[in-house]
Amino acid sequence: MQTFCSPCFATRVPIRVKALHTNQRTVNNPGSMAETAAPRWAQKTITLPPQKRGCHLVTSQILKEIGQDLSGFKCGLAHFFLQHTSASLTINENYDSDVRDDTETFLNRVVPEGTSAPWKHTLEGPDDMPAHIKSSMFGCSLTVPITNGKLNMGTWQGIWLCEHRDYPTSRRVVITLNGI
Amino acid sequence: MQTFCSPCFATRVPIRVKALHTNQRTVNNPGSMAETAAPRWAQKTITLPPQKRGCHLVTSQILKEIGQDLSGFKCGLAHFFLQHTSASLTINENYDSDVRDDTETFLNRVVPEGTSAPWKHTLEGPDDMPAHIKSSMFGCSLTVPITNGKLNMGTWQGIWLCEHRDYPTSRRVVITLNGI
Amino acid sequence: MQTFCSPCFATRVPIRVKALHTNQRTVNNPGSMAETAAPRWAQKTITLPPQKRGCHLVTSQILKEIGQDLSGFKCGLAHFFLQHTSASLTINENYDSDVRDDTETFLNRVVPEGTSAPWKHTLEGPDDMPAHIKSSMFGCSLTVPITNGKLNMGTWQGIWLCEHRDYPTSRRVVITLNGI
Repeated sequence: MQTFCSPCFATRVPIRVKALHTNQRTVNNPGSMAETAAPRWAQKTITLPPQKRGCHLVTSQILKEIGQDLSGFKCGLAHFFLQHTSASLTINENYDSDVRDDTETFLNRVVPEGTSAPWKHTLEGPDDMPAHIKSSMFGCSLTVPITNGKLNMGTWQGIWLCEHRDYPTSRRVVITLNGI
Repeated sequence: MQTFCSPCFATRVPIRVKALHTNQRTVNNPGSMAETAAPRWAQKTITLPPQKRGCHLVTSQILKEIGQDLSGFKCGLAHFFLQHTSASLTINENYDSDVRDDTETFLNRVVPEGTSAPWKHTLEGPDDMPAHIKSSMFGCSLTVPITNGKLNMGTWQGIWLCEHRDYPTSRRVVITLNGI
Repeated sequence: MQTFCSPCFATRVPIRVKALHTNQRTVNNPGSMAETAAPRWAQKTITLPPQKRGCHLVTSQILKEIGQDLSGFKCGLAHFFLQHTSASLTINENYDSDVRDDTETFLNRVVPEGTSAPWKHTLEGPDDMPAHIKSSMFGCSLTVPITNGKLNMGTWQGIWLCEHRDYPTSRRVVITLNGI
């Protein structure tokens, strides 16, 4: 990633500027429109295979699907939208699987389940209403910056699919890429 | 929705590709720019009428506002931004109102309220600080893919406005559409 | 912000339309393309200085960095992406610091920490696993509408950086602006 400060940020010392991509005229060469490119859109729906209840790292599965598409974007945003109400997408630690296990432990402690739980919606099983709540706690969509053809996540970040139901089912994710 | 695998995904068997929209040159007809269109933006602020404390399905209210705008986008993203700190937007089950009631029950159990609650910020009433916390738990914004002129949510997904204050007030949502 | 109802919304009375920006042909002057502008992208990474554990209002720090860039966008979206898994970004009340303190109190009550906590992932200290969980509860990214060169947040909204670790470290945020 290119590292420079544009003149307009030169006097802002406390917060360090690491990178700037733009499709406006470039600062050092204002006559050039080399950075200009027509914005593009790409969208597809992928189906992630069934996973057992818990948190699962799916970054590599997703990159297999969109890696080639991503490589065409210098700067943009990738949006991931899970089309379900009993699972969730979140970004968290990509290394130690204990973090994913502990997160599942937390979710099961914070959302009551079973005969003592206060839910009215129980027709689809004792794990269903807790699954809906967990889905809203973590959310069903993510937006990640694209920089130089890659998802610009931190070193330790990865994309998790959190399956909140006991019975594993495949899960659809609508992926939308937009950028230059 | 068109269903095909582009050549570049042909070898990726485990994850099924369901759809691909792009405004790049199409794979099967590289000379054609039929898919190319100028990206467009539309933005408006709507005001949702006052609702009692709890979770409310507002998909149809929102679609009444943006349905015609949406129809002009083949592929894109719709962004919904609630301009308040004591309510939230989330996506969850669109059918059984018990799911919304149970979610409200959960929120009231997980965030303490009343004389035993540990809050310092109590000037605006006992429901105010819990409302702020719930707003950050569920969030104040949503991004939903647009595909073929519609919000591309799952069959059972809907947009909820969660009102966390006791006294109902109208709530503003800035809606931004972007796509081709 | 311009306030008008476009003809296509004239029959939708219950939900008040406050504003509409578009780069399509304008309704009142269909021959004019005055609203049309080429979509633009800008992206940079900023580093927020170390903060103690707790919730911190960082709107002004962020605006110092991107205010000039923002002023070039009439309509668009600003995306903020924290590249870490033990801190979070959220939007909440921008006035009373007690709200931020109470939110930190809530997070520490809802996520167990210390010797009685059930975590397996403890190598990086007792505050580490709780920090990961809090990061997924509030999330690591925000999307905010841009209107007339400014972040279009509500009167009482501000951007918070929530630091979940005991030891303060600087935090990187990738900021992506997109609009017309």
